[in-house]
Amino acid sequence: MMTEPQLAREHCRPLRGREHSLDQSQASVLLASLPGWQIVDPGQLLQKEFTFASYTATLLFVNTVAGLAERENHHPDLEVGYGRVKVSYCTHDVGGLSRNDFICAAKIEALAGI
Amino acid sequence: MMTEPQLAREHCRPLRGREHSLDQSQASVLLASLPGWQIVDPGQLLQKEFTFASYTATLLFVNTVAGLAERENHHPDLEVGYGRVKVSYCTHDVGGLSRNDFICAAKIEALAGI
Repeated sequence: MMTEPQLAREHCRPLRGREHSLDQSQASVLLASLPGWQIVDPGQLLQKEFTFASYTATLLFVNTVAGLAERENHHPDLEVGYGRVKVSYCTHDVGGLSRNDFICAAKIEALAGI
Repeated sequence: MMTEPQLAREHCRPLRGREHSLDQSQASVLLASLPGWQIVDPGQLLQKEFTFASYTATLLFVNTVAGLAERENHHPDLEVGYGRVKVSYCTHDVGGLSRNDFICAAKIEALAGI
């Protein structure tokens, strides 16, 4: 079984075409290691909402995720409100979810736990 | 006629109750000074999407808007993607739009023009 710390140590790779998309059982295995994340819009988005006690903490999280996005060249959609950020990953190049989405989610979990 | 530079020099005030909400004609007058902004979800949201050439520029904008939000104690919803940010203001305390929403939008326009 893949654990979140193992997944968090991987890095995103350039992926193109449907051969790099994940089927439902592959996605389920990776999802099991990511507490609170869910797959929505059937198979298209990997998503989690994070909450924070202050706007400062909210923005610190946004900037941390953005730094990670730049380093991995894999950018999520973020919905940012007061004390909350919804993070949504998908891999446009494969038209759905790829391992890269789960790698970035695992990195966010690892960072959030520090 | 109110101009965007005039509006941008005002500051948000604490507002509560429907007497502080704007009717459609008041909102239309303020909206006329804000290029590209629109009122959506009839009368509930003041919204504009901004686009950027890079992720760095995108995040600089997010942080500028967030700093403004903290100073004015009026926080928008932000939808952040690669090279785009949709900004949505509303005033929950009045159940719709208030002058505060238009003041913050004018400040963003003023900042974006610098």
